[in-house]
Amino acid sequence: MNFCEPGSSGGCKTVKQFVLPFNPELADGKFAPIKLDGKAFHYLIRVRRCKRGNQLSAMAPNGLRFKLIIQSIAADSCVVELSQTGNGVEKHPETMITIIPALIKNNRMDAAVRQAVEAGAAAIWPVQTAHGLIHATGNSNTRTERWKRIAVEALQQCGGTYAAEIEPPAALPEVLKRWNSRGPIFFLHEKPLETGFTLHRLLADETTELALLTGPEGGFSESEVRLMETCGAKGIFLGERILRSETAVLYGIAAVMTIIRERKEWKLK
Amino acid sequence: MNFCEPGSSGGCKTVKQFVLPFNPELADGKFAPIKLDGKAFHYLIRVRRCKRGNQLSAMAPNGLRFKLIIQSIAADSCVVELSQTGNGVEKHPETMITIIPALIKNNRMDAAVRQAVEAGAAAIWPVQTAHGLIHATGNSNTRTERWKRIAVEALQQCGGTYAAEIEPPAALPEVLKRWNSRGPIFFLHEKPLETGFTLHRLLADETTELALLTGPEGGFSESEVRLMETCGAKGIFLGERILRSETAVLYGIAAVMTIIRERKEWKLK
Repeated sequence: MNFCEPGSSGGCKTVKQFVLPFNPELADGKFAPIKLDGKAFHYLIRVRRCKRGNQLSAMAPNGLRFKLIIQSIAADSCVVELSQTGNGVEKHPETMITIIPALIKNNRMDAAVRQAVEAGAAAIWPVQTAHGLIHATGNSNTRTERWKRIAVEALQQCGGTYAAEIEPPAALPEVLKRWNSRGPIFFLHEKPLETGFTLHRLLADETTELALLTGPEGGFSESEVRLMETCGAKGIFLGERILRSETAVLYGIAAVMTIIRERKEWKLK
Repeated sequence: MNFCEPGSSGGCKTVKQFVLPFNPELADGKFAPIKLDGKAFHYLIRVRRCKRGNQLSAMAPNGLRFKLIIQSIAADSCVVELSQTGNGVEKHPETMITIIPALIKNNRMDAAVRQAVEAGAAAIWPVQTAHGLIHATGNSNTRTERWKRIAVEALQQCGGTYAAEIEPPAALPEVLKRWNSRGPIFFLHEKPLETGFTLHRLLADETTELALLTGPEGGFSESEVRLMETCGAKGIFLGERILRSETAVLYGIAAVMTIIRERKEWKLK
């Protein structure tokens, strides 16, 4: 039996895990073998060139983790055996970050989604803004499905232990309402605000969830800033340079994640 | 006279400044009008569609900043008037960050360079590593020239006040020697190291320069880690997910920049 891990042959050099297309069902305390066809089959057998007996790490959409063994391969499907690894609890980060990026053009939105997942976003809620795209080309469902695929690919590559929930694009008031008051909510602003905060101050207290809004190319409009502030969102200014929208997404998550990850090391002056 | 600024007509909506192709010379305490042709002419007149009398912000490669006025336009060149703005001193950040990214494939290296400039890197020194590209396709000079162009474009878009110095790719020992001991030097590692540090601890003391090494897809090799540590570089672990090389570049700069920018807010526990 080969162990299909990074560095071994089989085209899976940079892939850390396989993400199952659905959650396997538990019967009598164990997972029955499942049949994979379509894209999952194509990816495992054609792209990764897995053989019968190959074993790899897998994760279900609900975050459960498995050892997956290829049991048999047919012309257009394969059967895999799953045994759970870990304690069955989805391994979430200390703080779950929902990124709310302004909707931008397709290829740049794709980059934003990919990098947000790599950086560890727990949810991505694209938002329509005055200076960004409102009526983007293409069907909204099609695009959402596309982002979900990109998110799964990114998760496979980076080996993350939890998937990112992806919502279809929605207007700013709707998104703010959806967030309600699950936790602190911040927005990155390209100008320093009188009401501005630093991330260290905003992140000094532990929180299980937080949301981060990032603007489109032209930034948030004045009325959008007022609306966000009315809904309790705090503005953050991250330096003089005007970041591209997709750059702002990763920059914001990296800044927030690092401050949270190192919380045991620092305190407010 | 029109003022060509973001939001005005003329195709310059997302451009914050024009970067001059050379440093204008000072004669008798003032800058004489200069003639622009080739790419600079093409960009200003064809792409941005500037007209005679248009005025825009400009920066020279040495960081000096100007008000630029289009004085006359010929078939394939134009003459511009320059008057200096600011105090003539290049406005650098408190800490200048040199990013030393592992050399990766062309299009992804391009993305890394662009995002590094947006995020505020003061220098970019691509490095050849065991698991990355050593003999990349294409001539090294051609590629370096290409990265310089991308850096200038990014600087024009983000409106930064200092340019990024770009060096041709070099081997790891050479790059470490070039850095010598200009300031602290860190490397991002995909595994936690026994000798690992947190960024807050490493950045607790003010420094005018620092360097950040980021690895290729497969990470740094063990002997590279030993070499870097021997040269005084400190390893940093930024979370469980394996970032793509270009994602690690921006993630690292964002993390470092934010901690430095907010240094007045926090202290070590």
